Amino acid sequence: MSKLDLRVRLDELYADYVACLDDEEFERWPEFFVESCTYKIISRENYDCGLPLATMLCESNGMLKDRVVAVRETSTYAPRFMRHIVGNLRIAEWQGDTLGVQANYAVFETLVDQFTRVFQSGRYIDRLVVDDGRLRFREKICDYDSVLVPNSLVFPI
Amino acid sequence: MSKLDLRVRLDELYADYVACLDDEEFERWPEFFVESCTYKIISRENYDCGLPLATMLCESNGMLKDRVVAVRETSTYAPRFMRHIVGNLRIAEWQGDTLGVQANYAVFETLVDQFTRVFQSGRYIDRLVVDDGRLRFREKICDYDSVLVPNSLVFPI
Amino acid sequence: MSKLDLRVRLDELYADYVACLDDEEFERWPEFFVESCTYKIISRENYDCGLPLATMLCESNGMLKDRVVAVRETSTYAPRFMRHIVGNLRIAEWQGDTLGVQANYAVFETLVDQFTRVFQSGRYIDRLVVDDGRLRFREKICDYDSVLVPNSLVFPI
Repeated sequence: MSKLDLRVRLDELYADYVACLDDEEFERWPEFFVESCTYKIISRENYDCGLPLATMLCESNGMLKDRVVAVRETSTYAPRFMRHIVGNLRIAEWQGDTLGVQANYAVFETLVDQFTRVFQSGRYIDRLVVDDGRLRFREKICDYDSVLVPNSLVFPI
Repeated sequence: MSKLDLRVRLDELYADYVACLDDEEFERWPEFFVESCTYKIISRENYDCGLPLATMLCESNGMLKDRVVAVRETSTYAPRFMRHIVGNLRIAEWQGDTLGVQANYAVFETLVDQFTRVFQSGRYIDRLVVDDGRLRFREKICDYDSVLVPNSLVFPI
Repeated sequence: MSKLDLRVRLDELYADYVACLDDEEFERWPEFFVESCTYKIISRENYDCGLPLATMLCESNGMLKDRVVAVRETSTYAPRFMRHIVGNLRIAEWQGDTLGVQANYAVFETLVDQFTRVFQSGRYIDRLVVDDGRLRFREKICDYDSVLVPNSLVFPI
C-alpha cells in the first residue's frame, strides 16, 4: 500500500470509528479491535508519569464487548449525545506488522436541555495491525488532558 | 475522478465552505448550492425522531439568498465571530449523480468582550452533485447536538 | 511535487507542529521557521482593522528561541496542558518560492484540577518556503477570535 493510500485508509478508519461512537452503534465498536487488544482511557498526568491507573481499561476484545453490555443494559446514566473531532493524524513507520498512529481529539458532550460543552480533549496513541484484510487496533490509548471528568464517563472515547 | 482526487476535492470544498462563513462572505454562500436545493439546521432530537421542525430551513437557492439579505440588512443582532472546525469526512458511494458525504463539525462563537465558547457541535449530512463543473450541495442538513442555541442562531452553519 | 503530495506534506507538517506544542517540546519549535521570519499572535479585531498591536510578536528566529527560554526559565505561570485541533487547510497557489496556507484552529486548555475549556479559536495565516529541503514558515500569523485571553497566554499557538 502506498503512503498516500495508507493515509486515506486511516482517515476513513478514524472517521468511521468516531461515527460508530457518536451514532451510538456500540455493537460494532469491538470490531475495530483485534481479538487480543488493549483499550485504555488514561489521564495525561498518569500516562506521563508512567502510573498505571486508568479510568477505563479493557485487556481483550471480550472486555470491550462486556463494556458494550454495561452501556446497553446494566449502567444507569442520564442520556447524552457525544461528538468527536479527530485531527492532526501522525503516522509513524511500520514496525514489523504494527503501525503507530497518533491523533488529537476533542469530544463534546450534550446533556438533555443543556448547552454543548467540551467533554474531553486529548490524544489517541494507537498501534494498528492488518487483521482479516482490515486495519484494526491492537492497542488504543485515549490520553486525556484533564484529571477531571465532567458528569461521568459512560461511553468509550 | 479517482477516489483520492475526490477526497482532495471534498477537503477543499468543505474548507472553502467554512471559510466563506467564518470570513462572513455570505454573498458567495448560495453558490455552494445548486438552484433546486434544501438547507436545514435541525436538532438531533428532531432529526432522529423524524420530526420536521427545523431551526432554519431553506428550500431553494432563492431562499438562501433571502437569508443572506436578512443577515445583512434586516436582522438585528450583536456582532460576533464564528469559527468552524470540520473533521472526520465520510464519503459514501455515488448513487447515480449524487454523492453522500457526512462530517462532524464544531462551531465556536465569540461575542464582543467575551470568551470564545462552544456554539454548536453536530454533523453535516450532505448530498452533492456535479453542477457546472463543480461539486455543489443539493441537500445540506446541519444536525446539531443540543436543542439549546446559546444567544441566537444568526449565521448559517 | 504534485498537488496531492503537497497536501500530504502540509498535513504532516501541521500535525507535527501542533504535536511539538502540545507535547511541550518547545526547543524544536523554532526549527519550523526559517531564519528570517515573523511569528505573530494577534486578535481578529486588530488584524481586520490593520492595527499593528499583537499579543505576541517575534521578528526573527532568534526571538523565537528567546521566547522558548522565557517559557522554560524566566516566566512564572501555573502548569497547564494545551491541545490543538487544526482543520480546514486551504492551500493557495505558489507565489514564486512562497506558498500561502490558511487553516482554522481550536486550542483547548486544561489547568491542574480544572475542566478542559476552549482557550482560543482562530485561523493560521501562513506563508511557507522550502528551506534546506523542508517546508518551513517564513510568516505565521495566529489570528484569534476573542480579544480576551483566559488566564494568560504562556505558550505559542
